Amino acid sequence: MQENTLMTTPTNSLETVTNIALEERTLAINWADGHLSLFHYIWLRDNCPCPECRHPNGQKLLETISIPSDICPSSIQAIEDGQIKIVWADGHVSHFSPRWLRTHCYSASERAKRAKELPSRKLWTAELMATLPEASYSDISTNDSALQKWLTMIRDYGFALLHDVPTTSGTIKQVVELFGYIRETNYGKIFDVKSTANPINVAYTDLAIGPHTDNPYRNPVPTHQLLHCLSSDAAGGDSILVDSFQVAELLRSQEPNQFKHLSTQPVLFHFHDKNIELMADTPIIGLDSRGELAAVRFNNYTIAPLDFEADLIEPFYEAYCTFGRMLNNPDFQVRFKLKPGDLYIVDNERVLHARTKFFSASNRHLQGCYADRDGLYSRLNVLNSSL
Amino acid sequence: MQENTLMTTPTNSLETVTNIALEERTLAINWADGHLSLFHYIWLRDNCPCPECRHPNGQKLLETISIPSDICPSSIQAIEDGQIKIVWADGHVSHFSPRWLRTHCYSASERAKRAKELPSRKLWTAELMATLPEASYSDISTNDSALQKWLTMIRDYGFALLHDVPTTSGTIKQVVELFGYIRETNYGKIFDVKSTANPINVAYTDLAIGPHTDNPYRNPVPTHQLLHCLSSDAAGGDSILVDSFQVAELLRSQEPNQFKHLSTQPVLFHFHDKNIELMADTPIIGLDSRGELAAVRFNNYTIAPLDFEADLIEPFYEAYCTFGRMLNNPDFQVRFKLKPGDLYIVDNERVLHARTKFFSASNRHLQGCYADRDGLYSRLNVLNSSL
Repeated sequence: MQENTLMTTPTNSLETVTNIALEERTLAINWADGHLSLFHYIWLRDNCPCPECRHPNGQKLLETISIPSDICPSSIQAIEDGQIKIVWADGHVSHFSPRWLRTHCYSASERAKRAKELPSRKLWTAELMATLPEASYSDISTNDSALQKWLTMIRDYGFALLHDVPTTSGTIKQVVELFGYIRETNYGKIFDVKSTANPINVAYTDLAIGPHTDNPYRNPVPTHQLLHCLSSDAAGGDSILVDSFQVAELLRSQEPNQFKHLSTQPVLFHFHDKNIELMADTPIIGLDSRGELAAVRFNNYTIAPLDFEADLIEPFYEAYCTFGRMLNNPDFQVRFKLKPGDLYIVDNERVLHARTKFFSASNRHLQGCYADRDGLYSRLNVLNSSL
Repeated sequence: MQENTLMTTPTNSLETVTNIALEERTLAINWADGHLSLFHYIWLRDNCPCPECRHPNGQKLLETISIPSDICPSSIQAIEDGQIKIVWADGHVSHFSPRWLRTHCYSASERAKRAKELPSRKLWTAELMATLPEASYSDISTNDSALQKWLTMIRDYGFALLHDVPTTSGTIKQVVELFGYIRETNYGKIFDVKSTANPINVAYTDLAIGPHTDNPYRNPVPTHQLLHCLSSDAAGGDSILVDSFQVAELLRSQEPNQFKHLSTQPVLFHFHDKNIELMADTPIIGLDSRGELAAVRFNNYTIAPLDFEADLIEPFYEAYCTFGRMLNNPDFQVRFKLKPGDLYIVDNERVLHARTKFFSASNRHLQGCYADRDGLYSRLNVLNSSL
């Protein structure tokens, strides 16, 4: 074990190194605040920031597979500008700033600290009716700070309303352009939601539609949907939203076996028309590899006949109906009526939307489109960095 | 137990009912070929095809949550046109055709039979060089059968080449319009891949680029990518493709522990530019809820510094490097040089692409774009039904 005592440019105790030691597989750094970081040599070599290993645009050029698994430094030292210099056995030299190392320390305590700083979802119920997340189009289209707040609401609540959107057909496109890109589908770049003859989709009727994910039969599912009211009168057609993640977490705690059926058993969603045949199979409740909620697909209109092991049919129906009844429970729902110039956006993998029956003669006309979270979150990240 | 003997319109033994019995929870149907089907009552009620329960467009109107879990028929009988009529306890009447029931029988043997008929992926290695999946643009743009074959290749092999594509800028858009829609991103609807000054992405340099997924930092990842060669000379820039699913299945069988690290531990992919900040965390090898391969994300250029439990860092590097070395092994790769007018499309969640170094002076100019599998598979399904 080789030891070095190192004085770095003192900025604060979180970035001030008090000791460095070369352990067998790791570089051990003691910090002025008492924290100890251990960095594996292979990790350090892989993250060498020199221009040979990393392009000026930040992309890694070093081929990670070329690093010997037993790589070790031959020496380590402080240099004048406060950086830590590592000379590797093959002569390659890496310089790391103490700040960068501390920021990327993967000790349990530092990871826990960073996790706390991450934005967290705000799960909600009908109580959110009192403070619906909303903004004005004239604000968010002219003021970056207002846009930042609106996008933050969408991220945290999985939906937000927007008022005072001009009722000119196609304006929804300008709303999307504030943060991202329209996802074009067989329904077009923009689609008109109104009661029509011979509708290919129940959306284009005057029927009530229960809480659902849009396009669960599509892979990839559009992550966001916007609906913009161009005209409407008072006769029905209220909008209802429900946070399926809130409901799914309750189901997980109250009925873990039912949750398991919905989160492991794939079902098929199916949509067909003369020129379209879309199919996707997926569990109703999608989990990521950590077991956390990733995406809910619930759509009783387009779910295909269940087609799996006979012994699972009745338990699955029990779970499906429990979840469905919870999603239909007004205690979990917010409900409002879009007026001309109103728009809402939902995270289509989390917040289900529904509408009450309306009357064909009522001139209800919405325009809708799909967009994805890549652009939305990128725009928000950039606003968060710059404001 | 109530029994009925039923004569249906005989078509063939697979659709001819010889006996029907009302069991406690299921309808039991004996078929002329000896098969026995059991349909749960709740499943039958849920799939009632009457116009009240199902819209003429095929979408289900019946609210599944309204079906009592102990629902039972009050009577069952054959009717003249060969359909099976079920009268439910509440008086609702359902008619099922024997053919529909047999097609949807979820017994183990019938499900196994249907599974065999599904198209299966053709995993490949360098041996595929002898018979690269390819077609001519003039054929697929004028002949539905040729288009069907080309789309089938893309589905089965995860990629295909296309020749004789006009070298007019923007023609790639017309190729996508044969089957789907462009996914617009911050790179534009179409992007130019050539060596530029101050590139925001290593794609826009003359550097060699190893096998990678495009845009793993985007959620959702574009499922397909097209690259169209407008101009090129002989100096480098060969294209290399590798079937990551083939390699991942080998890894699973040879190094199950390494496979487990790559398929369970999420890693972060990150891309940033002045106006863009995209991030997505996901395991390198994505599995569906059945444990089958769903999507591989491998991109050594944009993977962020590993940030998880210290004890997992070295085992993860071992797995990552094993997988990376296999992906870089020419035994698994096909290699070709795009000539002006050539194009390839890859399933970006399965087939990784790479290129060899080229020389900036060589006038290599590709145009690229992204598209998704929803449109592609829908077009193929419709062609398969109609041709």
